[in-house]
Amino acid sequence: MPSGRKGQVRVGTNLLQAARELGVELESICGGKQTCGKCQVIIEEGYFPKHGLTSRSDHVTDLSALEREYDQQHPLDGRRLACAAQVLGDLLVTVPEESQAHKQVIAKAATERPIDVDPAIKQVYVEVKPAELGDPRGDWERLAQALEDQWQLRDLVIDPKTLITLQSKLREGEFAVTVTIWQDREILRLQPGYQDGVFGLAVDVGSTTVVAHLCDLRTGEVLGTQSAMNPQVRFGEDLMSRISYINSEPQGLFRMNRSIIKTLNDLAEKAASEAGFTLDEITDVVIVGNTVMHHILLGIDPVQLGMAPFALATYSAQDLKARDLGLNLNAACRVHTLPLIAGHVGADNVGVMLAEAPGEQDGISLIVDVGTNAEIILGDRTQVLVASSPTGPAFEGAQITHGQRAAPGAVDRVRIDLDTLEPRIKLIGHADWISPGSPPPPIKATGICGSGIIEAVAELFLAGIINSRGHFNQGSAVSSPRILLDGRTAAYQLVDADLTASGSPILITQEDVRAIQLAKAALYAGTKLLMDQRGVKTVDRIILAGAFGTFIDPFHAMVLGLIPDCDLEHVVAVGNAAGDGARLALLNRGMREKAVRMARSATYVETPLETKFQDEFVAALNIPHATHKFPHLAGRLPESPEGNKRQPRSRLRSRQE
Amino acid sequence: MPSGRKGQVRVGTNLLQAARELGVELESICGGKQTCGKCQVIIEEGYFPKHGLTSRSDHVTDLSALEREYDQQHPLDGRRLACAAQVLGDLLVTVPEESQAHKQVIAKAATERPIDVDPAIKQVYVEVKPAELGDPRGDWERLAQALEDQWQLRDLVIDPKTLITLQSKLREGEFAVTVTIWQDREILRLQPGYQDGVFGLAVDVGSTTVVAHLCDLRTGEVLGTQSAMNPQVRFGEDLMSRISYINSEPQGLFRMNRSIIKTLNDLAEKAASEAGFTLDEITDVVIVGNTVMHHILLGIDPVQLGMAPFALATYSAQDLKARDLGLNLNAACRVHTLPLIAGHVGADNVGVMLAEAPGEQDGISLIVDVGTNAEIILGDRTQVLVASSPTGPAFEGAQITHGQRAAPGAVDRVRIDLDTLEPRIKLIGHADWISPGSPPPPIKATGICGSGIIEAVAELFLAGIINSRGHFNQGSAVSSPRILLDGRTAAYQLVDADLTASGSPILITQEDVRAIQLAKAALYAGTKLLMDQRGVKTVDRIILAGAFGTFIDPFHAMVLGLIPDCDLEHVVAVGNAAGDGARLALLNRGMREKAVRMARSATYVETPLETKFQDEFVAALNIPHATHKFPHLAGRLPESPEGNKRQPRSRLRSRQE
Repeated sequence: MPSGRKGQVRVGTNLLQAARELGVELESICGGKQTCGKCQVIIEEGYFPKHGLTSRSDHVTDLSALEREYDQQHPLDGRRLACAAQVLGDLLVTVPEESQAHKQVIAKAATERPIDVDPAIKQVYVEVKPAELGDPRGDWERLAQALEDQWQLRDLVIDPKTLITLQSKLREGEFAVTVTIWQDREILRLQPGYQDGVFGLAVDVGSTTVVAHLCDLRTGEVLGTQSAMNPQVRFGEDLMSRISYINSEPQGLFRMNRSIIKTLNDLAEKAASEAGFTLDEITDVVIVGNTVMHHILLGIDPVQLGMAPFALATYSAQDLKARDLGLNLNAACRVHTLPLIAGHVGADNVGVMLAEAPGEQDGISLIVDVGTNAEIILGDRTQVLVASSPTGPAFEGAQITHGQRAAPGAVDRVRIDLDTLEPRIKLIGHADWISPGSPPPPIKATGICGSGIIEAVAELFLAGIINSRGHFNQGSAVSSPRILLDGRTAAYQLVDADLTASGSPILITQEDVRAIQLAKAALYAGTKLLMDQRGVKTVDRIILAGAFGTFIDPFHAMVLGLIPDCDLEHVVAVGNAAGDGARLALLNRGMREKAVRMARSATYVETPLETKFQDEFVAALNIPHATHKFPHLAGRLPESPEGNKRQPRSRLRSRQE
Repeated sequence: MPSGRKGQVRVGTNLLQAARELGVELESICGGKQTCGKCQVIIEEGYFPKHGLTSRSDHVTDLSALEREYDQQHPLDGRRLACAAQVLGDLLVTVPEESQAHKQVIAKAATERPIDVDPAIKQVYVEVKPAELGDPRGDWERLAQALEDQWQLRDLVIDPKTLITLQSKLREGEFAVTVTIWQDREILRLQPGYQDGVFGLAVDVGSTTVVAHLCDLRTGEVLGTQSAMNPQVRFGEDLMSRISYINSEPQGLFRMNRSIIKTLNDLAEKAASEAGFTLDEITDVVIVGNTVMHHILLGIDPVQLGMAPFALATYSAQDLKARDLGLNLNAACRVHTLPLIAGHVGADNVGVMLAEAPGEQDGISLIVDVGTNAEIILGDRTQVLVASSPTGPAFEGAQITHGQRAAPGAVDRVRIDLDTLEPRIKLIGHADWISPGSPPPPIKATGICGSGIIEAVAELFLAGIINSRGHFNQGSAVSSPRILLDGRTAAYQLVDADLTASGSPILITQEDVRAIQLAKAALYAGTKLLMDQRGVKTVDRIILAGAFGTFIDPFHAMVLGLIPDCDLEHVVAVGNAAGDGARLALLNRGMREKAVRMARSATYVETPLETKFQDEFVAALNIPHATHKFPHLAGRLPESPEGNKRQPRSRLRSRQE
């Protein structure tokens, strides 16, 4: 319940696995390791013809040791961790709303940028000498001769799947054909007579979201953008969980690979059908993704990426056949993957570099892409440095008491009134601010997502509820019934029970604050390391890449010290820059060479190898602030340096504006 | 009956199709065009619960116009042509023995020849720098560096299916691996540590028989030879029938292609398992076949090969991936197909050229490969000419009243006593000569195969029963109850009714003699054309290639005038020379280049374009003889030139001797 699905599973199957088998998607960040607590389910009394009425404890294993441990820290109130509870007989199970995996809200759109259209795929029209007695050559040899005579194209090869179509296409076109050629080297498609139209897909395989842009390779136009949740989320929310799943399940890699390939096929199918043509029209694909997504997509076990020294199978760009990946596009369709840089710096980051080209800008650019790891690119015309910083998944809502992914019902915006200490929140899927006591919104709050937790911690600090070390202030300076203190821990009640899906309040705990501090310190320390290596004290612009960058408020990010001080005017969210990079490489083949040059010339800094990283990390744990930029707040803050006149921008300027 | 298979088919299905659907293989040469008469069946009375006892004419369409025509020329005695009779309701059908398709007897074995072993596939052992922090390269880049440093192998690529295995193989071998490399260019396989063993398949896809030699690519040794009937035989005996089947059936090409691929997979599986290893060990395949087999194998519709100007899709050698053909060998296994020469001169003939190398021999070689078409190669160091002569399928037993393929029960040897005019015969599957009145052999005669009909016609001529124009002598010079004459036609009763499976006698008719005359004239005219073009009156050696060449008796072939006069000592049957050529190309990569040079430098003579062909053809219709070589027969022959002392050899010297 509530899906109503029924079915039989093997005795001993855990409920997370059982739910998967029955097609019910449960939240799971840890991938079944009984630690994240996201897969909680309620075992109900149920009537079964064979057994009569069963109680809640019939037909299911007792609490596991790990489950009991979890229960002590985060009372389960009789719920079970689906990954721990094993089926022993007939059961009726309810999946509470907060445990249901939701379809992701996608906030990505292809940005319009000027692109020099020079794709890897081209079409030429050619007239071929008809076959005749006395000319024993094959039709292919006659076509190749015509392409050499009429287009000076030499040493071409033809894909065997295309060769199959040659004779009928030639005759259908009365020995005139339109030839689709890849990199002036290989014939991918033949169409009878004169035809016009070559199409490709630019794909960003994110850990959470997969986006595909269908592009007209002649005009460069984006004909349609399709996105979907990465189906691998059901095998583990973060990358480490997915690697663990693959390690523990003999079929794990196969399943992960098939699920993402199926999603790509579905996205391509949708994009093509909305644009009014068939998959046969798609002859080129460029794919970016982080290193784990890249390896799984290619069918490579990512196990080495889960442990030092984080060895990639390859960091080179790949030219593949779509059919070898199982993609159902044109039978001869090509796939190009951008190069990788290191174990934690993937083709997505190369896509970002390609799109933002920090090495071609005046001044120092800092590009930050936050996910389970934060990838940091810093550079100018002289040098570009890259690093990956182990922020952990806190920024994605994991490891947070009521954390969740950015999905409907998640708290994504937070304000705390400096006088009353009362909160205002926004929920994904509902436009209005919600205050305690306001009429209940049509949707219930299910948890808090990454941007929400960042705003919440920053607001707690600005309101003086926590101090710069991240501790809840124990004195009487701030006092509110929302601040729950006991000897052991502390929390702030952000959402009251009447507004939540679970019926329990949503809290920001001392542990949550600590988790954000650790994450932001890792990010800042990585940034600082690169700035030191490059020998700069400040940056001239900050580019926030990825969905996270679009949602977070740079004001709050700067208050927390997520990013270094920088004029807010020069902080830009570029959305899916990785996908933009893929699109560039799809539309311009020179960009593929450029991506390789960028990847190979970038200086990769291995953060764990740098002793300075640990120092910077410890130094960055405290919460700094930016009150000099917000003078009206100065009086309320623990420390108060000089201010200036600039006003905060409540929302980030994006390139779409 | 007699298989006992039952099943339901759609109303209107013909019995040939119905038999196929029920898994019963019927003989069919014409592929369902109601002309060959090989698919005769008997509709029996049958009891069906729904209908009670049905008569022989219930639930089946009446005789078709074509069937009635066939019946007038070759009385059906109440039988039906399965391809004509359509199912209207429940039926009980008996398939008489002569209509059943049999498993082919295979008389091919790989001949041992000295071969310089230098295959396209090689193994090298290499030690790779282990991954470590601070080296962001991928394992592939480290391996490529090691191959360059230790083996001077540069610019290698790795098959994506092999890349998938890289990290685990490297670690399993503690960063030492054995690398299987194709053409010094592409890595096909990785094995942990030091390993030894590379294997490949040389395959000859004949119209009737498919042979695969499993070879050790290091030693050149043939580890095993497997053969099977080409499963396409059930879609039509000769090439034209198969093309017709593809033209008339929307799924025809797909079925034909799948069936041959399945056979190749089966042969590979058998060969590997008998040699004691897995299909994963096979990393290279060389395939030869005639042009139609080649195209169907590659998935190319052979329709253009069925009509002038007989345009090939390509005549180039192909380098493919086994997986793209659907072959289940090593995931990265390569397939090489030898080049073709012209619409009727295929990779099998190039294989023969490679094996026999007429351009490297002193004196003029004539190589004849007889099938539905006869391919003729004539040449010496100066020039090699090739032609295809439209012999039709008579030499394969088709278009002959009681003709059949070389299968158990077929008459394959014939002697006619010069005094009594009584025959002696041999049957495939039975070692002894059989005379009329001798105790019945354990198997019954089902028909007469190609070698049998050639001997029969030659013997009829030697016995004076037919004259040199091929007519049955009408006078009293020869007289026997076996010679059946009426005003319209004539026949010789070769096998009496008590020795045949059908219970009817097996005859050699005037029409059969004519069919053989037409076929042998076409072959001789083609040979003569090439000899004239080359400016020679005689040849120094005759090489008979293919299964047919192994079975026919060169004495009888020369009596008939199938081949030009040549000292019998210099007539050699080389068996499956096409398969030998495939094996050469498998074991020596230089042979692949050589095959291309041979194919491209050979002079192709298009027989239909040569006006002289028609003249030579008419001139060759008469039956010459070689009595000068067989003086003891001289007195019995219509004409009697001077003799010599040489004795006939009853059996052909083959290279195996």
